[in-house]
Amino acid sequence: MSVDDGVERLARLPTEDLGHAQVDTHRELRCGFSEVVFGAGKHPAELVSIARSILCESNRLLVTRVSEESATTLATELPGACVHARARAVTVGLPAVDTGTGLVAIVSAGSSDAPVALEAEITARMLGAHTRLVTDVGVAGIHRVLSRVEELRAARVIVVIAGMEGALPSVVGGLVERPVIAVPTSIGYGASFGGLAALLGMLNSCAAGVTVVNIDNGFGAGFAAAKINALGNEDG
Amino acid sequence: MSVDDGVERLARLPTEDLGHAQVDTHRELRCGFSEVVFGAGKHPAELVSIARSILCESNRLLVTRVSEESATTLATELPGACVHARARAVTVGLPAVDTGTGLVAIVSAGSSDAPVALEAEITARMLGAHTRLVTDVGVAGIHRVLSRVEELRAARVIVVIAGMEGALPSVVGGLVERPVIAVPTSIGYGASFGGLAALLGMLNSCAAGVTVVNIDNGFGAGFAAAKINALGNEDG
Amino acid sequence: MSVDDGVERLARLPTEDLGHAQVDTHRELRCGFSEVVFGAGKHPAELVSIARSILCESNRLLVTRVSEESATTLATELPGACVHARARAVTVGLPAVDTGTGLVAIVSAGSSDAPVALEAEITARMLGAHTRLVTDVGVAGIHRVLSRVEELRAARVIVVIAGMEGALPSVVGGLVERPVIAVPTSIGYGASFGGLAALLGMLNSCAAGVTVVNIDNGFGAGFAAAKINALGNEDG
Amino acid sequence: MSVDDGVERLARLPTEDLGHAQVDTHRELRCGFSEVVFGAGKHPAELVSIARSILCESNRLLVTRVSEESATTLATELPGACVHARARAVTVGLPAVDTGTGLVAIVSAGSSDAPVALEAEITARMLGAHTRLVTDVGVAGIHRVLSRVEELRAARVIVVIAGMEGALPSVVGGLVERPVIAVPTSIGYGASFGGLAALLGMLNSCAAGVTVVNIDNGFGAGFAAAKINALGNEDG
Amino acid sequence: MSVDDGVERLARLPTEDLGHAQVDTHRELRCGFSEVVFGAGKHPAELVSIARSILCESNRLLVTRVSEESATTLATELPGACVHARARAVTVGLPAVDTGTGLVAIVSAGSSDAPVALEAEITARMLGAHTRLVTDVGVAGIHRVLSRVEELRAARVIVVIAGMEGALPSVVGGLVERPVIAVPTSIGYGASFGGLAALLGMLNSCAAGVTVVNIDNGFGAGFAAAKINALGNEDG
Amino acid sequence: MSVDDGVERLARLPTEDLGHAQVDTHRELRCGFSEVVFGAGKHPAELVSIARSILCESNRLLVTRVSEESATTLATELPGACVHARARAVTVGLPAVDTGTGLVAIVSAGSSDAPVALEAEITARMLGAHTRLVTDVGVAGIHRVLSRVEELRAARVIVVIAGMEGALPSVVGGLVERPVIAVPTSIGYGASFGGLAALLGMLNSCAAGVTVVNIDNGFGAGFAAAKINALGNEDG
Amino acid sequence: MSVDDGVERLARLPTEDLGHAQVDTHRELRCGFSEVVFGAGKHPAELVSIARSILCESNRLLVTRVSEESATTLATELPGACVHARARAVTVGLPAVDTGTGLVAIVSAGSSDAPVALEAEITARMLGAHTRLVTDVGVAGIHRVLSRVEELRAARVIVVIAGMEGALPSVVGGLVERPVIAVPTSIGYGASFGGLAALLGMLNSCAAGVTVVNIDNGFGAGFAAAKINALGNEDG
Amino acid sequence: MSVDDGVERLARLPTEDLGHAQVDTHRELRCGFSEVVFGAGKHPAELVSIARSILCESNRLLVTRVSEESATTLATELPGACVHARARAVTVGLPAVDTGTGLVAIVSAGSSDAPVALEAEITARMLGAHTRLVTDVGVAGIHRVLSRVEELRAARVIVVIAGMEGALPSVVGGLVERPVIAVPTSIGYGASFGGLAALLGMLNSCAAGVTVVNIDNGFGAGFAAAKINALGNEDG
Repeated sequence: MSVDDGVERLARLPTEDLGHAQVDTHRELRCGFSEVVFGAGKHPAELVSIARSILCESNRLLVTRVSEESATTLATELPGACVHARARAVTVGLPAVDTGTGLVAIVSAGSSDAPVALEAEITARMLGAHTRLVTDVGVAGIHRVLSRVEELRAARVIVVIAGMEGALPSVVGGLVERPVIAVPTSIGYGASFGGLAALLGMLNSCAAGVTVVNIDNGFGAGFAAAKINALGNEDG
Repeated sequence: MSVDDGVERLARLPTEDLGHAQVDTHRELRCGFSEVVFGAGKHPAELVSIARSILCESNRLLVTRVSEESATTLATELPGACVHARARAVTVGLPAVDTGTGLVAIVSAGSSDAPVALEAEITARMLGAHTRLVTDVGVAGIHRVLSRVEELRAARVIVVIAGMEGALPSVVGGLVERPVIAVPTSIGYGASFGGLAALLGMLNSCAAGVTVVNIDNGFGAGFAAAKINALGNEDG
Repeated sequence: MSVDDGVERLARLPTEDLGHAQVDTHRELRCGFSEVVFGAGKHPAELVSIARSILCESNRLLVTRVSEESATTLATELPGACVHARARAVTVGLPAVDTGTGLVAIVSAGSSDAPVALEAEITARMLGAHTRLVTDVGVAGIHRVLSRVEELRAARVIVVIAGMEGALPSVVGGLVERPVIAVPTSIGYGASFGGLAALLGMLNSCAAGVTVVNIDNGFGAGFAAAKINALGNEDG
Repeated sequence: MSVDDGVERLARLPTEDLGHAQVDTHRELRCGFSEVVFGAGKHPAELVSIARSILCESNRLLVTRVSEESATTLATELPGACVHARARAVTVGLPAVDTGTGLVAIVSAGSSDAPVALEAEITARMLGAHTRLVTDVGVAGIHRVLSRVEELRAARVIVVIAGMEGALPSVVGGLVERPVIAVPTSIGYGASFGGLAALLGMLNSCAAGVTVVNIDNGFGAGFAAAKINALGNEDG
Repeated sequence: MSVDDGVERLARLPTEDLGHAQVDTHRELRCGFSEVVFGAGKHPAELVSIARSILCESNRLLVTRVSEESATTLATELPGACVHARARAVTVGLPAVDTGTGLVAIVSAGSSDAPVALEAEITARMLGAHTRLVTDVGVAGIHRVLSRVEELRAARVIVVIAGMEGALPSVVGGLVERPVIAVPTSIGYGASFGGLAALLGMLNSCAAGVTVVNIDNGFGAGFAAAKINALGNEDG
Repeated sequence: MSVDDGVERLARLPTEDLGHAQVDTHRELRCGFSEVVFGAGKHPAELVSIARSILCESNRLLVTRVSEESATTLATELPGACVHARARAVTVGLPAVDTGTGLVAIVSAGSSDAPVALEAEITARMLGAHTRLVTDVGVAGIHRVLSRVEELRAARVIVVIAGMEGALPSVVGGLVERPVIAVPTSIGYGASFGGLAALLGMLNSCAAGVTVVNIDNGFGAGFAAAKINALGNEDG
Repeated sequence: MSVDDGVERLARLPTEDLGHAQVDTHRELRCGFSEVVFGAGKHPAELVSIARSILCESNRLLVTRVSEESATTLATELPGACVHARARAVTVGLPAVDTGTGLVAIVSAGSSDAPVALEAEITARMLGAHTRLVTDVGVAGIHRVLSRVEELRAARVIVVIAGMEGALPSVVGGLVERPVIAVPTSIGYGASFGGLAALLGMLNSCAAGVTVVNIDNGFGAGFAAAKINALGNEDG
Repeated sequence: MSVDDGVERLARLPTEDLGHAQVDTHRELRCGFSEVVFGAGKHPAELVSIARSILCESNRLLVTRVSEESATTLATELPGACVHARARAVTVGLPAVDTGTGLVAIVSAGSSDAPVALEAEITARMLGAHTRLVTDVGVAGIHRVLSRVEELRAARVIVVIAGMEGALPSVVGGLVERPVIAVPTSIGYGASFGGLAALLGMLNSCAAGVTVVNIDNGFGAGFAAAKINALGNEDG
């Protein structure tokens, strides 16, 4: 019996091809932000290895969707790593809260949406944005979001996160003139169909100017928000 | 060549079986309210014939989902018939506006939802309820529904009609303690999938006490609302 | 390594914002009935903490969808807590069986639907309704439901629970004039698609006056039924 | 410019290949009953041509799903053709009503299901079965089907046709020991999704022994019923 | 703390109601064959209890979809119980192989379909049919089913079981004049969507006379086949 | 016979309620940009009436999704109206091409996507953005989009429009650091399912920072892009 | 009033950009075969214009999915154009039947699949392949395809076209060692869901080596087949 | 108690029937390549038994989708077995890398697609093809695939593997004239719906000549590619 060299050949390929093309091998989800690693489905050791190679060239790192085991391993192996348990993320070099330029508001409907909200917040902060969390303002208690409108209007761009019927982006989009990025979450059961109900609701929002990302994609929303927020830093 | 007697045999069957069982032949959607006829897909002549047989035994009639041609024919053939063009309905013996007991509020998000809202309103009125229409209060302009809350709180039961993301029932359900019946409409395009987005949104409403009927089913919502409204007429 | 303050910041937020708006933080599913907690996906300690804060202001509590572990922890930590194992619920201050006003009948098709039926029954009872369970009356043995019609007619409102083809609400809705709230369950396999077949069946019910809640949503049905039942207590 | 010979080459092929293999060219839906033609999407002239070639070898013919135009053309061109307008069928050599062996009952929920019911009935009759139509016995008026039980028990096999929630086969299957073939119809709107709701309901029937055919497939149900009915003619 | 009496009340209900209506409490899937129990989701002790109550009144029993643990418990507790491991079933009083009247052929495409095939076979045998298994005759090796045609033609009715594309019933239905009951299985991956591909394939079969049951529903197919097979025992 | 006053009552309602709440009656899709009217499903006369009421208070107007008939009527009735035939839009007061601030690039994959691209372009221009169209750069000829990269990089925000597999936003998102708004179109057939394939593709884009709007929603994308583009006009 | 220059600007764009990049403007579906035009949704005049520009640089042309009106216009306007009515195609320079190299067999299940089969055949022929049509060999009459096996084995690659359950590719793939390209068609009704059933069936084919194209995509299958066929022309 | 003979009867059947028809019993997924075994859902002992019977008649073997436990057992029990851990495969007699005729390129978008890519590569190699892996060339970094175009053009046929939006085959199909076989993978989350997004994207590819296999079906793609590759070995 022998163990096939499939893994070895795959691992060797980037070395063989190391012109400029494949430098981001193994990081297919990092497009445009080369220090982020999608942690789901990767072994702790694999994550440590990728993280180290990134930290050779950069002083910041964001690993999303980590398991508890991976988080612990990364925290142990990487100097300066910070574990964000509820966000299911590990970071190196994350700017402090209340630093950064502009303002990205992250608004969520319910407490179960917190992991996605925190992933969005950390991502935007990592990319240099000042952020603010506005949580537990679901539409069934409409006074809650109304009482926070001034905070929302202070932001350059707003990320709105909701599961179940996904109605919050429509309300926020109607209250605030700023760009709104909606994130459906998989919170719900039965006819929520894993977030499909919230996704469809957001795509059909009657509030103009709402755009949508994939279910539970806090990273994508935080990334897009930070890009948009950065436009306000440029000369008008 | 001969023309088959299939239709004739079908038409004859109720006569052959006229014990008590099949008296409502040809009216499969009238269950529990024997004076209503579902007009879609029926020829004008067929509708006139059914309507007349109902009016032999009752002084009220509701025909829903009528084509323009059927409406005209029914209005011409039936004394006392009233055409409700936007509601796509024809009635005989409809009680006047602002009569009836209790109060059923019919709330709709946008002007395109009017046919469904009016079908619900006419149905509830026909069954003896006092009704009130509150229209154009979609969630993207949240101040609109907020300014009407007192009217909603005056009702015993509220029918809420919305297409697109179907978020209005959640907001109303959070503002008012009364039972809410949500009606998704097929208004929308693309990922609305013919009303599916609104339907799923309403089924996943985070506001407790919201129940849902089929897409565009104004009749069913008005009927259920009238039944619930009538409970308030009984001795406590 | 340091542990991120994400959770802490989230937990702190309500304290920071404690005007009147966010008092129901962490309880996004309690809208309109502030003593209910949706237990699924929450840790036992988190549930105990939420439960205690509710019991400071109220003498009743309903926790739904609890795991066995959460149920045991809540029963141990909360004086007066009662575990309802099959209903997957924990209550404090639940009124006794056969108390309450009016009558809400809870009808279920098969024994596998019992957890949903009991969740509906406990919810309605918690909100002050007199309740009656009518179980195992699926449509494939139609004599079963027929033999219980008198009990059903005695109710002000009827909750009907069924999985598989979800046909029972149509039959009940045709037999009894009262409002019917239909609850599809995820009981079934194959083309039941997790309750979708029953949900679609109920939405397409040919019996007028049937309204529908989400799959397995016994709480929502019990809540809506109790609201409707309460209308009969008012002056006519 | 020239007109391509695609059609000609296709039409010529069977001639070229006329061993025993392709004799049923152009009649892909006739499998097992070589005198049936699926009329939908075929031009009147094409249908006449196919019909004539069948009538050279047989004295019976069934054309299903014919348009009004095709029906008229076939009736004009074929001696002895009988048009069944509501069933959307044309026949030659159809046995008279109340002839045939055994008994196939065809049960339908509402009058809108009549075209499918009549297609099933004609098909079964064409194949030698004695048939009986039992119509308008939808489950929302359960007394209707109950009053017909004796007729159903007299049949060897029962075809049950319903749209909307498709619940009738479950009720019939629970009342009668005979094999039940369920036919979902596309009657309905909104969340009926063109008959999907009825189809799923029937596949999930809790009544054992119910089997299902495609939406609106009255021909298939009548064909299967006639095959099953014929088993009773054999020596036990 | 106290443990709620929900379960007790439910369990007590049948006793309270023991007229003739609810005698089959807890056995919602047994409709028409009162000695069958659907074992999925039931605890071993619950199954033993139900099984014993059945065996008080009958000398035969079929428990389907049993877990290994339930099978062992039932085999230990019930005298004369026979475990059918691959069929996931337990029986009491199952007639011997090659006994019974008529002939039901059970045909399956691949070896992974064996559990469903065996469930169908045991069910048909339990109901008095002579049965024959024809396995591993999937359509990609068409010679396999062709070499078994004589065996298929000897049957009164044929159950055809297939996963993946579900094409076998069309081929068998074209080869044999007998009624064909098709059973889609959940065997497959990716775009099989848990058996949906096979289900749709079978519903669209171009072979007339094919009827379909739910995904993996070997019991239902065996039950329907036995009913049909029994017709051949009657006087012609 | 009398004609019901349903329409009249509906039309009268806003007059009765004319505080500040319902001023945008009948324009449910204009949220946040009160001079836009969604033209689909509205009669020409209704559109003229709405348009006139808008032009009393504003010197600009955008009517989207107009039929040819509505476009002609609006052009005839409204002084200064401009018909954009391929964009299916009518405008009043549209700023000239190559005016406006910043830059919004509108990129489309194929010529069939032009109506959606032009709707987006006109919307963004109406809201004050400088726009540029980059068309026919579908991914199957990857050199086409590569040759336009410099133009794309000059924009502040990019709208990318594609039907069929919807892959273009991923490629553009990887080439350009700017925010990308993806618009799936209903161009395609078969398994495109009316734009669903493109929609899912865009939601799953591996390029970070891509956000998505509803199928064919050029207006929404242009609106969001203009809002984002305007951020660059503010002081940094 | 003025007519907007949207169309003009679009039309002008290729002229403005006429480097090498956008030469195939307006022909997004021609990728890799620059003489093909997808005719659906294009006006006759537009098609004539595109066709002429192609014929300036090539002596062959294939227009697919043409309406009858477009076919007539193209045939009138283009010298040498040949209309293929049943294939819904127009060609210039199509090689004669029975010319070309290698052999591509095009196999179809039923006569309704002919338009797709002929589109595939013409495409393959246009690209230089020798082709053979084998029609009406659906699986419900399995002898039909068996009698043609030798013809199929003579081909280098086989295109198999079927609607309804889409089973034919599995049978052919099991009979012949050659690459098989499966084309699902939209032929069917009800649970065929516009070809979805056939598509899923083909994707789940148990015959290894079957690959699949979009529903009704005869062009794509013919194109792929011709590419594969051409490999056999190269030096081994 | 007795243990049923279901398994034994099934196992015995092939022996009973051992003409030529059922020799490939238990190997329903091997059609056309009799030495491959689909390992998913089979017990290690069962796999060893099947493998040994194959190795009696052949000196090569491919077991796909093996669990770790099965891989270890097979490696221990079978002399010469090689475990390919990442490809989830076990082989006997696999030709060495860089042997074989022609060239099959296997291209994958991200590192998570490696198991599917390696399964395809091993399959093609097992069937005699020379293979080359080109990995991590997802479309969001378009330079990566562009830098590898020469390698792709050297291949006779190309397998392209991608999850998420599945766009890579369109880009490759536009860059290279060779046949492209696209394999969607289940890599993704949320609206990827288990690979459905990638599958639909590939079926709608605007690059002509792309054909598609089932989600994650590396074996099928490798098998088809090897068949096509072999055509190039024949005399032209």
